[in-house]
Amino acid sequence: METISEQACFGGVQGFYRHASEACGGPMRFAVYQPPQAANGPRPVLYFLAGLTCTEETATIKAGAQRLAAELGLMLVMPDTSPRGTGIEGATGDWEFGEGAGFYVDATQAPWSARFRMHRYVVDELPALLAANFPIDPTRSGICGHSMGGHGALTIALKHPQRYRSVSAFAPIVAPSQVPWGQKALPRYLGDRPEAWAAYDACELVRQQTFPGTILIDQGEADRFLTEQLRPELFDQACAEAGQSLQLRRHAGYDHSYYFIASFMDDHLRHHARALG
Amino acid sequence: METISEQACFGGVQGFYRHASEACGGPMRFAVYQPPQAANGPRPVLYFLAGLTCTEETATIKAGAQRLAAELGLMLVMPDTSPRGTGIEGATGDWEFGEGAGFYVDATQAPWSARFRMHRYVVDELPALLAANFPIDPTRSGICGHSMGGHGALTIALKHPQRYRSVSAFAPIVAPSQVPWGQKALPRYLGDRPEAWAAYDACELVRQQTFPGTILIDQGEADRFLTEQLRPELFDQACAEAGQSLQLRRHAGYDHSYYFIASFMDDHLRHHARALG
Repeated sequence: METISEQACFGGVQGFYRHASEACGGPMRFAVYQPPQAANGPRPVLYFLAGLTCTEETATIKAGAQRLAAELGLMLVMPDTSPRGTGIEGATGDWEFGEGAGFYVDATQAPWSARFRMHRYVVDELPALLAANFPIDPTRSGICGHSMGGHGALTIALKHPQRYRSVSAFAPIVAPSQVPWGQKALPRYLGDRPEAWAAYDACELVRQQTFPGTILIDQGEADRFLTEQLRPELFDQACAEAGQSLQLRRHAGYDHSYYFIASFMDDHLRHHARALG
Repeated sequence: METISEQACFGGVQGFYRHASEACGGPMRFAVYQPPQAANGPRPVLYFLAGLTCTEETATIKAGAQRLAAELGLMLVMPDTSPRGTGIEGATGDWEFGEGAGFYVDATQAPWSARFRMHRYVVDELPALLAANFPIDPTRSGICGHSMGGHGALTIALKHPQRYRSVSAFAPIVAPSQVPWGQKALPRYLGDRPEAWAAYDACELVRQQTFPGTILIDQGEADRFLTEQLRPELFDQACAEAGQSLQLRRHAGYDHSYYFIASFMDDHLRHHARALG
């Protein structure tokens, strides 16, 4: 693991790092915020997964999460949203697919399957790397995300409830099998098999296994992707049918941007801090 | 005045606007954050002047100021750092001079004098435009800035203490006449006359007229520009000699970035809110 930069921030350290990823078959970058308390021992960790077109820098710069993380003693981990520089034809040039649009799946279809394995990267490889290099307490992990990253957070928590004590999302894609973003990306990554897509579809997953804790979701009502791509009502219904505790908050006037995320970030950090102790 | 965008943010509105500027001889952009209280009547206003290479977006995105501004009821105004698209030979391509590096002076030397009049833009034109278009109380104005913008905030407040009730800066250039950044830019904007530079030099200005209130300055000790370009000890000494109340705080480990600014932004907002009532 190589340190790209480390900067003082709210009494802690905001760092950017690079490492050779086995899961993604090449170099990956990620950001870690260490709160001041990390100097004294392992801290709980909150993963934040960003959305389409974003990198490890986006939420680090725009979400304003470090201030309260410093107060609560939370480590913040912000991975990139896909492998980069893959050289695969068709991997760049389309903001909805490929680089910057990994959708937090393990691709099974060539040529994507060699590099686009963001699910195992986030769930297995990155936590192991962090445990070896940072003062984290991996038994106290939470996961959050925005849009495509909200989809990532929900599906990862629902698939691995033993690994995460808390989950939340901002404007998540909740039913990729039913909306254009997912219907475009999932067949290319996973093949033309709806049963494979279901393994990465929060609405499908929650019907199989609920998460032991309340899921917090914030959604802006002025979000231009609300009715076509996000459709939180589908997850609301799936959770109700599955008996999953869900706090879905709709906010008049808010859009899909980081001005929306920043506005409610404190609530998400407190949601996770309560569960992570 | 044209609205570029308006987005909900912490219960208020983060907007970006464009207008034809007389002072700068062309279009100028600026950002305004209106706190929720602005819906009920005029609010005090805090100007934030950004540094070299920055635009009206930089602090808006990176400083994390909207959260507490919403709580305190402060309007935030973030202008661009210079005119843009001037077409003047030599105005682009050098990050220390020209576009993105207006130094908050009124240039007197051709060809700069036709466009680079950021001092009068910030002091006169922009406040008048705001008063006509936003619920601000111009009798309650404060000014803050970073680096070159800290220089702007200090010099503007010291030149116009009747217009601003409060002033603060992050890592400001305090003695442009004595440091490379100023010695490069001021002769080109103002001619080869040290007496003209002195009119935009905080260390010189404070000896002529003090500001009626404590000036707050935060400075990181790991700032790579500290000893060559910033030299806060010169302002500390000038204030001591002039009888100017100054709170100069030095922070071990902090650099010149917005991670530093964000870390202490709350203190600056509270400093201004106390003075602005």
